[in-house]
Amino acid sequence: MRLRDRAKFRQKDTYINGTLSGMSELIIWTYDWVPEGPRGFVRDLRLRWACEEAGLPYSVRTVPFDGRETNHLERQPFGQVPFLNDGDVQMFESGACLLHLARKSEKLMPRDAAGEAETVEWLFAALNSVEMVSVPWWFLEISSAKDNGLTGWLEQRLGHIERILNEREWLAAGRFTVADLLMTDVLRVSKVRAHGDRPATERYVAGVTERPAFKKARADQMAHFASGDETRASA
Amino acid sequence: MRLRDRAKFRQKDTYINGTLSGMSELIIWTYDWVPEGPRGFVRDLRLRWACEEAGLPYSVRTVPFDGRETNHLERQPFGQVPFLNDGDVQMFESGACLLHLARKSEKLMPRDAAGEAETVEWLFAALNSVEMVSVPWWFLEISSAKDNGLTGWLEQRLGHIERILNEREWLAAGRFTVADLLMTDVLRVSKVRAHGDRPATERYVAGVTERPAFKKARADQMAHFASGDETRASA
Repeated sequence: MRLRDRAKFRQKDTYINGTLSGMSELIIWTYDWVPEGPRGFVRDLRLRWACEEAGLPYSVRTVPFDGRETNHLERQPFGQVPFLNDGDVQMFESGACLLHLARKSEKLMPRDAAGEAETVEWLFAALNSVEMVSVPWWFLEISSAKDNGLTGWLEQRLGHIERILNEREWLAAGRFTVADLLMTDVLRVSKVRAHGDRPATERYVAGVTERPAFKKARADQMAHFASGDETRASA
Repeated sequence: MRLRDRAKFRQKDTYINGTLSGMSELIIWTYDWVPEGPRGFVRDLRLRWACEEAGLPYSVRTVPFDGRETNHLERQPFGQVPFLNDGDVQMFESGACLLHLARKSEKLMPRDAAGEAETVEWLFAALNSVEMVSVPWWFLEISSAKDNGLTGWLEQRLGHIERILNEREWLAAGRFTVADLLMTDVLRVSKVRAHGDRPATERYVAGVTERPAFKKARADQMAHFASGDETRASA
């Protein structure tokens, strides 16, 4: 039953130059359109960026933004994006998808046990020690004018990150990894970035977002939603 | 420099029956003591529980609760617990450690690609789609009497979980996995559990916390901190 429901999101056979290819093509799923506000920050960008860093070919498919609360629950049980197809493997949660992509390319994660452990712990830290505070803090900031009860906690977590980034250039394994990609995506949110004076963090975010793979992923996402504007205008 | 700092947390050679063993022993690090409130919920319990489910031998070592903000930053950059040694591999973040343990035992995660993908996506969902809301919500609940600005968001996320658990017994792969362990640990927090009427979730949490491995892990943690009481009393 559940498998049948999911079938409509399964990728078709992939033809490359007219020949059926055995290679599974990565498919990143996102919305067909979003309002101006979240553009450049919808989390399909994390997966686009990882694929660009690794040189992994991918395509992008969409679910309608209208009705998103229920129209793809069989693929993403919270009604969110992104989700990923890799052949028969289907995944949701950007962190899980990033880890999956990182296992496909040494450019995203070193292959030695210690380097992999460092990368994975910092991938989780970006999500569960920083974003777990920064996203609810941001949500309270935009939804009410009252005192934000999470500010002290946020400042404590951002302070730890500032100390770490004062000590080293990259979070894990002495090189760029998927952990930097994710931590940067968490830290680059405008309100978070503007909160407090944290020069090492600012240097880190500015540097990582200068990477060509980030710039391409961001530009592609902006173009994707701009084309959604056109489709909606002509509908 | 960083490696030298970390050396004091490295495990000694492991002797089993007087013979130096090549097997790496798992070491779970936690505090030597915590106040009554968090007992039974300190996250070393997640790792104890996973080891008990998998039959993986482990020992527990401690860092002092007093001075925790700075006394182990070289092992856990946010001053928290748990962290894990597995031979030369060192990790922090309970999610990262659980994934590491899951890769050691099929009892925690199936070995086929689809089953592993489902388990990993739900492991991240427990952390980043549920705990990312429930922990800040809980924090606001205990720290202020005012309206909790995260309640609507929490109810939305818990509603999705209730729907899922109405449809199936386990989150991933049709069987107990480390994703159920983590989701249950997120959902069993008293205030979260008491919030709203969600019978499928209650049945799930009640059922999973009946597992002998959970009961042993919880009892061991309670005993560990009780012995901390005695040490402090005699100090």
